[in-house]
Formats: sequence, structure tokens, C-alpha cells
Amino acid sequence: MQTRLTIVKVGGKVVEEPESLAELLNDFSKIVGNKILVHGGGRSATAIAAKMGIESKMVDGRRITDKDTLDVVTMVYGGLVNKNIVAQLQSRNINAIGLSGADLDLIRAVKRPVKDIDYGYVGDVKYVNCEQIEQLINAGVTPVVAPLSHDGKGQMLNTNADTIASELAGALARSFKVQLIFCFEKKGVLANPEDENSVISELNMPTYEMHKKSGVINAGMIPKLDNGFTALTRGVQEVLITDVDGLKFKSSTGTRLSLEDN
Amino acid sequence: MQTRLTIVKVGGKVVEEPESLAELLNDFSKIVGNKILVHGGGRSATAIAAKMGIESKMVDGRRITDKDTLDVVTMVYGGLVNKNIVAQLQSRNINAIGLSGADLDLIRAVKRPVKDIDYGYVGDVKYVNCEQIEQLINAGVTPVVAPLSHDGKGQMLNTNADTIASELAGALARSFKVQLIFCFEKKGVLANPEDENSVISELNMPTYEMHKKSGVINAGMIPKLDNGFTALTRGVQEVLITDVDGLKFKSSTGTRLSLEDN
Repeated sequence: MQTRLTIVKVGGKVVEEPESLAELLNDFSKIVGNKILVHGGGRSATAIAAKMGIESKMVDGRRITDKDTLDVVTMVYGGLVNKNIVAQLQSRNINAIGLSGADLDLIRAVKRPVKDIDYGYVGDVKYVNCEQIEQLINAGVTPVVAPLSHDGKGQMLNTNADTIASELAGALARSFKVQLIFCFEKKGVLANPEDENSVISELNMPTYEMHKKSGVINAGMIPKLDNGFTALTRGVQEVLITDVDGLKFKSSTGTRLSLEDN
Repeated sequence: MQTRLTIVKVGGKVVEEPESLAELLNDFSKIVGNKILVHGGGRSATAIAAKMGIESKMVDGRRITDKDTLDVVTMVYGGLVNKNIVAQLQSRNINAIGLSGADLDLIRAVKRPVKDIDYGYVGDVKYVNCEQIEQLINAGVTPVVAPLSHDGKGQMLNTNADTIASELAGALARSFKVQLIFCFEKKGVLANPEDENSVISELNMPTYEMHKKSGVINAGMIPKLDNGFTALTRGVQEVLITDVDGLKFKSSTGTRLSLEDN
């Protein structure tokens, strides 16, 4: 029988404000069994870039990553955010290890080809190399993964944290019974963006397509949901989209994805 | 029989200029068997701090680490320098993993008590936690260690890279036959600072004390040499102080330390 593995992706201000981060890490620490934390850090990256006189350019919510910006995200995601989370998990008796996609050759990517937009040093994931991370997990270690990949030729690349979480979940589903939880600012996927309580409790592929067509699900949610459904098609047991409170009561809140009506 | 482990500490501009770093990593990659790279990054930290409008304050070559400076060194050592080295080693088929002292609870430290000088968030090493790093090494992984420690209470701390290298070497000497190589700008310990070729080929404790008293060995070298001799007293097999070229021909150049005349 496969053992359980919970992968939690957190982003937004939750990871970047000391009080909310501390609360999140308390909740994360209480998750029983194997777990991985995947974090973002975009707000800190934007703030540090601004202090260094580097302008942050976003297209459709994605960061254009020129050379200077790549240095900033490598520092901020791989260093500042990652190491502080690791130190704080250690203080909660969680034996954490910080990883980027370059460490242990964990996440190989290719620099995104230029079509309409040149995203710069952004990596599209080619594959996840699970062998060593599985050994760490089986030894009781909790990986804390920064949204950075590498191309295998010495180049670090910037990769969306939702994508990293989905790719890790999909790859690790061969060895573990994986639950993937996307934590963000809302309680779940909302039927009405104006109403915080209009959480759609269950989304399957057909209803997702329907809501996309009707415009109920807006553009900002689509990459996250696509990542979630991709994980399910790759054998991930359960995908949940929720807020930080959802981590506390993870079976009763948020939006649960499923492939088909059930 | 214990297997060999080579620990190389590199600092100064060698790790911070792309060409010299590439050459160093080529040489490092060619070292046969288990190895660890410990790096600095002070010049990059000073440059990034300056861009952010943070002044770098040094006392006797040691960085005063206030809160803002701690963020900078955490980003630069743990993120920018570390991840780029890891990615470049991966491209040379070395399965590298970047670690700070917080990862795997590798290096516990206490914030240095304030006496004459308040060094701020600087960590004096309490102990090295070897279990998991030994497993990684035995699995063929090459750790790349940033000069950062943590206090076990959630706080990252800044620790001198020579000290980190010496502490790792001393702790790992229980399980490996350790060779510790300090790479720096000079060919070795110089008898005459004006003469690059006046390398002292062998230094033992009595001659070290003698050279310290006579002033042949200047203040800047003393912490490095103390770290080297400490490692020897803890069972490290061999300590060598050399430049990057010394890595290529490591048995014939530089200054070799020994406890007694031999």
C-alpha cells in the first residue's frame, strides 16, 4: 500500500507577512505524515527588485524574467523566502530541507520559446527527477520547494509555483497517494467573485469546461485549475483549492477537483 | 576502512566572477570521490546591499549583520550564489544539492553574545548534525554549503565560511577520511606578503605559534589558520591552504598544516 503524501502550495501575502506565515507553518506542521511545501514569493521579489531599481514587468499575471529579474527571483525565492521557511519549520521540529529545481536535478525545464511574448528566463518543466526526493521523504524529511527550475546546462529558470506543485504531485503519484492542496487568498473557486461565500465545492472536468465557457470562472483561476486537473490525470488522488483556514479543516472546505462526475 | 571526503572552501572573487567560477567548478568536478563545496559570497552581498541602499559595515574583516544585512546574506549566499553553483555543477554531471545550516538542521549556532562589538545576527556554531548529509554523500550527492547557520528557534544567522568548512570537516571526520582545502587568492600562507612565491609549504603548531609571534603571519590569516588547526585536532586527515590552481595539483602546492613536526 502506498503511503500518503500531502503537497501544499502557498503563495501570495500569506507567505510574506510574518504573522500569517507563522500561522500557516503552525497548520502545515500539524499535517500528519509525509509532506512537501511549495511556496511563491512574488511580492517580496517585486519589493526587492524595486529597492534595487529593477522594474517588475508582468503579462497576464506572469513575470517577465530578464537577467536582473532572474537574479532577484533566484535570491528571493531560493534564499530569503525558502531559508526563512526552513528555519521556522526546524523550530517546529519539522526536519525541512529547502530545494530549488536545480538541487538534486529535481526539476528540469526548457527556457520558454519566444512566440508573441518573450518571457525571458522562464522555464517550462520537462521532467521531475524523483529518486532522491523520495529517499528524503521516506527518511522523514520535509522538502520546501522554491519555484525555480534549471535547464541542465547551468542556467537557473523561473517557473510558476502552481506548476511546480502540480508537476511534483504528478511525478510523486507513482510512489505515494498524493493529496495536492493549493492555498490562496480565497476560500475556493468562487461562482461569484463578489461573494466570498459562493465557493463551488466540487468541480469536475465537464462542469469546469461549462464554467469556463459561461465566464463564471475567470482568467486568473484558469492556470491554477489547469494545473490541478493535470495533476489528477497523472494519478494524484485528490486536489483541493482553499485558503489557509482550509488547511486546518482540509476535508470540509474549499473546492475539490475531480475528473468526472461522481 | 573509511572512504575519502574532500571539502573545498572557496571564497573571494573566484566564486563571484563567471569565468573564474567556471574554471573552479571544472576543477572541483574532477575531484574523484565524495566532495563538498563550501562557498562565500561577500562581494556579491556587498554589491547587492549597496544597490538596495544598505551600507555594509565590517569590523576586522567580519560583517556586522543587522536585520537588513541578514536578509541580504540569506538571499545572496543561500539563493543567488548557491543555486547558480548548484545549477552549474549539475551541468557538469555532479549531482549537487545546495544547503544552508538550517536545511536538515545541518548547522546549529547561537547568536554571538555582545561584548565589545555587537555583530548582530552572526552565529557561533554549536554543533553540526551529520546524519542526513552523510546519507546524501553516501548516495553520491555533492553538498554545496552556504555560510549560513540557524539557531533552532526559527532565526537564520550569518556564519563565516571558513568556520563552516572547518566545522563540517571536523564533524564528518568521524565517518570519512577528510581532506580540507581552503582556496583563496594567494598560493598559500606567505612568509613575505610582498612576495607571491614565498609560500610556506608546511606549517605545524609550533612553527605557526612562532610565525604569529614574529609577525610573519598577519592578522588576516589567523582566523583561517585557527580554523585549519581546529579541524586537524578534530581528526581531519589533511588541511591545505592554496589558490584555485592548487585544486588542480593539490598534492604539490600551497601550505599544508600539521599538528606536529614530522
